[in-house]
Amino acid sequence: MNILMEVVKDITPTEEEVKDLKKMSEKIIDQLYNRFKENNLIPPVVDILQVGSTDRNTNLKDDYDIDIFVRFDKNTEKELIGKYTLSIGAKVIEDLGGNWWVEYAEHPYLSGKIGKYDIDIVPCYKIEWGEKIISAVDRTPLHNEFVKKTLEKIDKIKNNKNYNNINNINNNYNDDENYQLSIYDEVRLLKKFLKGTGLYGSDLKTKGFSGYLCELLIIYSGGSFLNLLKDSENWKSSKKIILKEIYELYDLNNYKFKDFEDPLIVYDPVDLNRNVAAALSKNNYCKFIHYSYLFNRTPSKSFFYNYVDIIKNKLNDRFKGYTLTLCIKRPSDLVDDIIYPQMEKLQRGINKLLVENDFQYITWDIDATENLCYLSWEFLVWKLPNVNIKVGPPIFNKKNVDKFISKNDRYFIEDCRLYAYTERKYTYVDDLFRDLIDGKLKGKVPYPKNINPENGFILKNNVPYYNKD
Amino acid sequence: MNILMEVVKDITPTEEEVKDLKKMSEKIIDQLYNRFKENNLIPPVVDILQVGSTDRNTNLKDDYDIDIFVRFDKNTEKELIGKYTLSIGAKVIEDLGGNWWVEYAEHPYLSGKIGKYDIDIVPCYKIEWGEKIISAVDRTPLHNEFVKKTLEKIDKIKNNKNYNNINNINNNYNDDENYQLSIYDEVRLLKKFLKGTGLYGSDLKTKGFSGYLCELLIIYSGGSFLNLLKDSENWKSSKKIILKEIYELYDLNNYKFKDFEDPLIVYDPVDLNRNVAAALSKNNYCKFIHYSYLFNRTPSKSFFYNYVDIIKNKLNDRFKGYTLTLCIKRPSDLVDDIIYPQMEKLQRGINKLLVENDFQYITWDIDATENLCYLSWEFLVWKLPNVNIKVGPPIFNKKNVDKFISKNDRYFIEDCRLYAYTERKYTYVDDLFRDLIDGKLKGKVPYPKNINPENGFILKNNVPYYNKD
Repeated sequence: MNILMEVVKDITPTEEEVKDLKKMSEKIIDQLYNRFKENNLIPPVVDILQVGSTDRNTNLKDDYDIDIFVRFDKNTEKELIGKYTLSIGAKVIEDLGGNWWVEYAEHPYLSGKIGKYDIDIVPCYKIEWGEKIISAVDRTPLHNEFVKKTLEKIDKIKNNKNYNNINNINNNYNDDENYQLSIYDEVRLLKKFLKGTGLYGSDLKTKGFSGYLCELLIIYSGGSFLNLLKDSENWKSSKKIILKEIYELYDLNNYKFKDFEDPLIVYDPVDLNRNVAAALSKNNYCKFIHYSYLFNRTPSKSFFYNYVDIIKNKLNDRFKGYTLTLCIKRPSDLVDDIIYPQMEKLQRGINKLLVENDFQYITWDIDATENLCYLSWEFLVWKLPNVNIKVGPPIFNKKNVDKFISKNDRYFIEDCRLYAYTERKYTYVDDLFRDLIDGKLKGKVPYPKNINPENGFILKNNVPYYNKD
Repeated sequence: MNILMEVVKDITPTEEEVKDLKKMSEKIIDQLYNRFKENNLIPPVVDILQVGSTDRNTNLKDDYDIDIFVRFDKNTEKELIGKYTLSIGAKVIEDLGGNWWVEYAEHPYLSGKIGKYDIDIVPCYKIEWGEKIISAVDRTPLHNEFVKKTLEKIDKIKNNKNYNNINNINNNYNDDENYQLSIYDEVRLLKKFLKGTGLYGSDLKTKGFSGYLCELLIIYSGGSFLNLLKDSENWKSSKKIILKEIYELYDLNNYKFKDFEDPLIVYDPVDLNRNVAAALSKNNYCKFIHYSYLFNRTPSKSFFYNYVDIIKNKLNDRFKGYTLTLCIKRPSDLVDDIIYPQMEKLQRGINKLLVENDFQYITWDIDATENLCYLSWEFLVWKLPNVNIKVGPPIFNKKNVDKFISKNDRYFIEDCRLYAYTERKYTYVDDLFRDLIDGKLKGKVPYPKNINPENGFILKNNVPYYNKD
């Protein structure tokens, strides 16, 4: 049994899991349908359908997400589609013994829990292929339709041809003779590979690959995880992917595809003006290329499981500089997608100030728990003598020369320019952070609304370093 | 009495000084002439003449240099002109009660001391205007001829016109009614200004202005020190000066002047392929421009006396970084012009290594006494934690990626490139200097023949710096 087969067996939902998920989602849809009918809401409700990976058979084992979309006629008022769905959805979840709450994206939707199942009931408009969306989630049912249809089509071709992609592509593997990998297995392998390497998730914290992006990439690769990795190890900056299915969907004679500045561009078959990989950061894109290369060179199960931890531990096992962490109270009601961009903005501002003050850092990171946000740094230089060099104008620029020498007594000439010795504002990096916490750096550093350094404190972890003296 | 008048009175040789200098040089020339004649050496000796500032009346008070040039016919062998001049010159100096020694430039010449007088007796070939030189010093008598003739001519024009440059140019000065500055005073003022600001001397240590360059600049300014400074405060990079007298000396229709990369280019009237300001460093050029500007704005006597010391003291009166001096034994028989370029080469090599090892210096300097050479640095960063970051290849370059990751276990990806944590070679700058002294850095740093770090030791002067902790 080869590596991939071992992983597939580990990550495929059991038959029972699949059956139970189906049963539960049908039950919800049935009850929603009945209640909308009772209330004379069909129309405006056009249909009710399950979407997402559990519907497409691309979910990993132990994933109990059920996403139900209630599609309304395009002429219904936006306020009403939320109101109807929330009130009726809530009753259905209650009837099934669960509890519910309201979540907010562009418009409100219903979330709930029934036993082990995580339920989302989302209202949207029914739009046709190529039509403009009205609400942000209107594309989702079309994504679902496209992925289901296309995976099924490719999977049939794979099976009709009795095509065993793994044996054909990489002879390092001895496939289990009795089992042929389905295209659904291939999607799951990619998702698991990305989880193991820390690249799965399109949220603003992870900045990695969404489930939908994984499905499109497996479609792009002709239904083969290994083919994808053989391809991606050669990707360069600004890789563009236009699925051939897109040309079957639309008449694209002389069509000029939109330009994106993202590292990876995967045109959305449902909306050609949208890049499905927009959330992927440049660094994660590079990691994916590099990990593809490493996996192709030396396949190993660890890529699917604890690769990101192995790397973290290895990088941590070394001499360290001076480490300092700024901890800030996290507002209880805010999700990662709100918190992380604000932490990043704050850290970028502090980094700029650190550079201006000659404090050299070699690593910087952000993290958050339920109660606290952590912004951390590791410094090469954290204490400095109380002398600084201020850069002045070229000696030829007399107006600025006058201004500079009137303010700076101890100046000298170097490279046709004036420089002056001045006193340093911060000789110790801790003092800079203390001023930050005291609110004294407003205007020099952004103080984000929800991640305010004034609610912060400093954590020091001065690991002693090797020093001959 | 204004500033310039005060300075002029202070720096003009007394009548007695001038008379005595003339007497001594005539005595030497007479005796040389007699002895060459006795030995049937006229010809090949064509003439014997005094050159230099004491001959041109541009020397400062208390300058007792007498330069005598013995000019030979162009057909005389190079070896012989030295031999004749050294033997006959030595006898003449002995006859006059002095002592002598041989100095070496491109060819040997005689140096001696008679009482307070410093004598040089130099053999050269007599060449005509526009002729190619045979030995390096053949230009000197022509320099002398050009300067004497031109200064005299301009001085006459100044006096005939009853032209008082100081009152006309700058009304801040009230000239002494009874005294009219001669062009010789103006040359002396420039020399004294450059001495006071540390810019006088074209040796490889000073890299400033030669006496000949001062004379040409006063000629360029029409015979006025103040006019020169009004002009020079506006000089930019690569200032070109072609004296109008050059056009009178040569037929220069469509002549293309040679290009020089120096900061200031003053074409030598005696040899248009030579830049008289070649020795001037860019930094000293910039200082001259800036000091001209400052003097024009606020004239002060200190520019002529202790300006360079005032600045040094002011710059020294400040908080300091970590200072370290490498002291190396100075070979007893070598002049500054040999020693300084070697010290500079060594310091440049060490600077490169300091940067590679992340030690940040803010000042560096060289100096030498009779017995020791000093290379000194002032550091902002002199101790570092034992972690370093090694820059690797872009992730796309697989061949180099393989090489890099086979050697560096703790690597990570940033900006599409590999980086690795490594251990630092030097965590303390003193260790680097100790390795240098132990001869362990050969191949990484030049070990100059005469300034060998292996003959060195470290001087530390760790001035404590302001630190809140």
